[in-house]
Amino acid sequence: MARETTRRKRSGGRAGSAERRGSAAIEQMPWSPPINTDRPTEPLDEAGVQAIHDGAMRILEEIGIEFLNEEAIKILRSSGGCTIDGENVRMGRDFVMEMVAKAPSQWAITPRNPERQITIGGRHLNFGNVSSPPSYWDMEIGKKVTGTREMCQNLLKLSQYFNCIHFVGGYPVEPQDVHASIRHLDVLYDKLTLTDKVAHAYCLGKERVEDVMEMVRIAGGHTDEEFEAGPKMYTNINSTSPLKHDYPMLDGWMRLARRNQGLVVTPFTLAGAMAPVTMSGAVAQSLAEGLVAVVLAQIIRPGACCAIGTFTSNVDMKSGAPAFGTPEYMRATQMTGQLARFYDLPMRASGVCAANVPDGQSMWETSNSLWSAVQAGAHMVYHAAGWLEGGLIASPEKFVMDCEILQQIQRYMDPMLTATGPDEIAVDAVKEVGDQGHFFGIQHTQDRYTTAFYQPYLSDWRNFEAWEAAGGIWTAQRAHQTYKDIISSYEAPPMDETICEELAAFVARRKSEGGAPTDF
Amino acid sequence: MARETTRRKRSGGRAGSAERRGSAAIEQMPWSPPINTDRPTEPLDEAGVQAIHDGAMRILEEIGIEFLNEEAIKILRSSGGCTIDGENVRMGRDFVMEMVAKAPSQWAITPRNPERQITIGGRHLNFGNVSSPPSYWDMEIGKKVTGTREMCQNLLKLSQYFNCIHFVGGYPVEPQDVHASIRHLDVLYDKLTLTDKVAHAYCLGKERVEDVMEMVRIAGGHTDEEFEAGPKMYTNINSTSPLKHDYPMLDGWMRLARRNQGLVVTPFTLAGAMAPVTMSGAVAQSLAEGLVAVVLAQIIRPGACCAIGTFTSNVDMKSGAPAFGTPEYMRATQMTGQLARFYDLPMRASGVCAANVPDGQSMWETSNSLWSAVQAGAHMVYHAAGWLEGGLIASPEKFVMDCEILQQIQRYMDPMLTATGPDEIAVDAVKEVGDQGHFFGIQHTQDRYTTAFYQPYLSDWRNFEAWEAAGGIWTAQRAHQTYKDIISSYEAPPMDETICEELAAFVARRKSEGGAPTDF
Repeated sequence: MARETTRRKRSGGRAGSAERRGSAAIEQMPWSPPINTDRPTEPLDEAGVQAIHDGAMRILEEIGIEFLNEEAIKILRSSGGCTIDGENVRMGRDFVMEMVAKAPSQWAITPRNPERQITIGGRHLNFGNVSSPPSYWDMEIGKKVTGTREMCQNLLKLSQYFNCIHFVGGYPVEPQDVHASIRHLDVLYDKLTLTDKVAHAYCLGKERVEDVMEMVRIAGGHTDEEFEAGPKMYTNINSTSPLKHDYPMLDGWMRLARRNQGLVVTPFTLAGAMAPVTMSGAVAQSLAEGLVAVVLAQIIRPGACCAIGTFTSNVDMKSGAPAFGTPEYMRATQMTGQLARFYDLPMRASGVCAANVPDGQSMWETSNSLWSAVQAGAHMVYHAAGWLEGGLIASPEKFVMDCEILQQIQRYMDPMLTATGPDEIAVDAVKEVGDQGHFFGIQHTQDRYTTAFYQPYLSDWRNFEAWEAAGGIWTAQRAHQTYKDIISSYEAPPMDETICEELAAFVARRKSEGGAPTDF
Repeated sequence: MARETTRRKRSGGRAGSAERRGSAAIEQMPWSPPINTDRPTEPLDEAGVQAIHDGAMRILEEIGIEFLNEEAIKILRSSGGCTIDGENVRMGRDFVMEMVAKAPSQWAITPRNPERQITIGGRHLNFGNVSSPPSYWDMEIGKKVTGTREMCQNLLKLSQYFNCIHFVGGYPVEPQDVHASIRHLDVLYDKLTLTDKVAHAYCLGKERVEDVMEMVRIAGGHTDEEFEAGPKMYTNINSTSPLKHDYPMLDGWMRLARRNQGLVVTPFTLAGAMAPVTMSGAVAQSLAEGLVAVVLAQIIRPGACCAIGTFTSNVDMKSGAPAFGTPEYMRATQMTGQLARFYDLPMRASGVCAANVPDGQSMWETSNSLWSAVQAGAHMVYHAAGWLEGGLIASPEKFVMDCEILQQIQRYMDPMLTATGPDEIAVDAVKEVGDQGHFFGIQHTQDRYTTAFYQPYLSDWRNFEAWEAAGGIWTAQRAHQTYKDIISSYEAPPMDETICEELAAFVARRKSEGGAPTDF
């Protein structure tokens, strides 16, 4: 299957584009990462922002964070701003703020197709695919199964296909039929050939991180110097909450910092489990854990491109299970947004749910989380499409359904919707129609009807009778068909033949060398 | 069935409350209409607000609205502020603003149970049940069917049962097995006995309006004077867009104004059909149509309790079918919110969708519309639970699912979620746990875990395996079971025996008189 995919892609080329446009599975919105025009929703007043900041600073000053990485400890010690006791690192708020201030408030990542560049910061809003579930579910299989490379490839194809997916995060599902030592090589090969969007490296040991950076460099046709001139990719690390950064995460973080790539740190602070049961306390701890990574990056490379992520949610206090897209989750995300602006750092949030199948619950939880990301002023929205079961399952139906919501958010941000010029207020059109008739036929409508309103590809707006006559298909089943249509008509984006060969050769060489150690 | 219900209710009484609490079908949040603490989302700048206001005023000044009611024309003429040509009424902006300024910015409605009083205005947010669908769908029936009194009663029971439903709007489904001449008598009897929340009258002829006012007066045990001392109920009228108010709507509007009841006017301005294809134009027309009704009420009774509603959405330009919960709908709702604040009038919005069944689409459309109502600062949210197919179908499963979202909105507005006192920032708790262990067992968590997080009654937060072992039930099917459980354990709220008898006697008398004419 992998081989077949490769052949299809290679034969695609730039000449295939016109043909590809003709075989579109759905009509979708064009590539156009939204500009978030809404004023953020801010539940905290100034004193609230200061209280959370003070909490984060007190954690760093009085308690400290464990750095399970000697090199990181050495670098932090060299800065002269830290109090170090074994693996425990404390730092004063003045030093933290001085270092954090070196981080740019906005930066860009340029993938192999420069037209797919995304900007992290300001009012830019970017959506990424589901990342890292070990398992997979689709309506045809009908049960939870272990991820495979083919499933991973199909989800990568969806990630490329949908213009409302602006970056490709981690593996959309873990392909467990590929040995862990070489998994990063095969998946990155797939990712870099099946998509031309911003890619990501997991921090799981130096070999994987270095291999991925090298593959992204090759795919972009860059020299080392060009690669390091600005981010061509990024990583996302998670702290081991509470209050700990482990070895491989820090190792990868430092490697990307040295090569000037994008750095996102996202503590996973489940309130009541790995963080205080109170949401502002969980946010304060998350910030403390995130900011120290930013400090480390700024010591290594002043001006390193950093963003802080939020993954603060609550547990079900009956079962201890994590919950997602809850009211508490929404408020934590909004509060983190306020603090990210306080620190003048870009922010990552997520599209999440606890539901196990793409049903009603999955949609209200995902809607809640996506809208809270928008309200928080987040710049990167991870897992924005395809996530189920708290991130343990990737689903193509959920992916297709989520992209319908993402397109609607993109459309929602179109200034056209709230334009109030004379042509939009349209008193003349009202006068023309008067109290008789309707607006369908008048020129004002005719001039605009093709672009006036959002056109969904998945929502069924027919009346019940027409919907029933067409089979009475519920959303998830419709999404399954759309997924099938997209995969069957998928064509990979063009890639220069020599670059493709160089990538393949790199993968072959690294495989022959044994790939990466699996003793992490 | 109606008889059985009546008997059960009568035997309930106040003594039954303790017993009722024991047989709760679900654990739900207490009655507590939310206070909307969020700053509204405002897509318009000051110039945009002025442009829409100017558009609405130009419609009233240059085009006018048709009033298909002689008495209304007479009253408008008597004001001295209108230019009248047959049924066409134009009015200048100074006059409009002078009259609208007489309307209170906040008012309350007190139903027969004074503890269920709701406040319309300020930061108060109230949710109502689905109103007026002719058809019904549930999972057991599995198809769209004509509404009956039993279905209507069951939906009224849901409306009473859920504490997150704060008022009972129109008939939750049209009981077409009851003759139209007496339908209002039977449904109001059911509504006033099965629920103790704020009720509503349709403006469908003077008999119906007067009957409903009389029944609400009887149910509340009020004298005429007490009834008229402040709103005990309300109506909602729709204009016949474009630019027309019909006879019965105006008749009822004036009757309620005279008796000091709540007045909500909601033009149904589908952009591209009954209003300009441009959203700000559709909003301007909607405001023009709404404001004239407010003016009429203020002439009749200066200080009459009015609110303006928005029902501005777009059509599917391919089919002409109305769409709901779209990006355009959200922006129109938010823009209307800005203008409602400009006019200092309370606002009504809705929870809506175009989906035909309670599936994923129904949830993203409903979520979009409900959150836009919140973002608009709306005070009454109609159709907040139970609506399908653009309002043509009522569904109990959808009702149960929507209430899960409504509870989450209620919880989202709890200031506890974003409190930032020292106990919430919880640096001591972070210190206590340090970098080892977890927060489950510590005192800070134990003191709070029962109330720290929202507890859903419908969301399933178990992992896939546990969910699958329990039958692998999707949301809509779970909601069906919850609906059944609620109905089977339902107990009507207490009502004084003599009042109940007086109500029944009124219904019997009016039926013997033939009810209301059906030639409307």
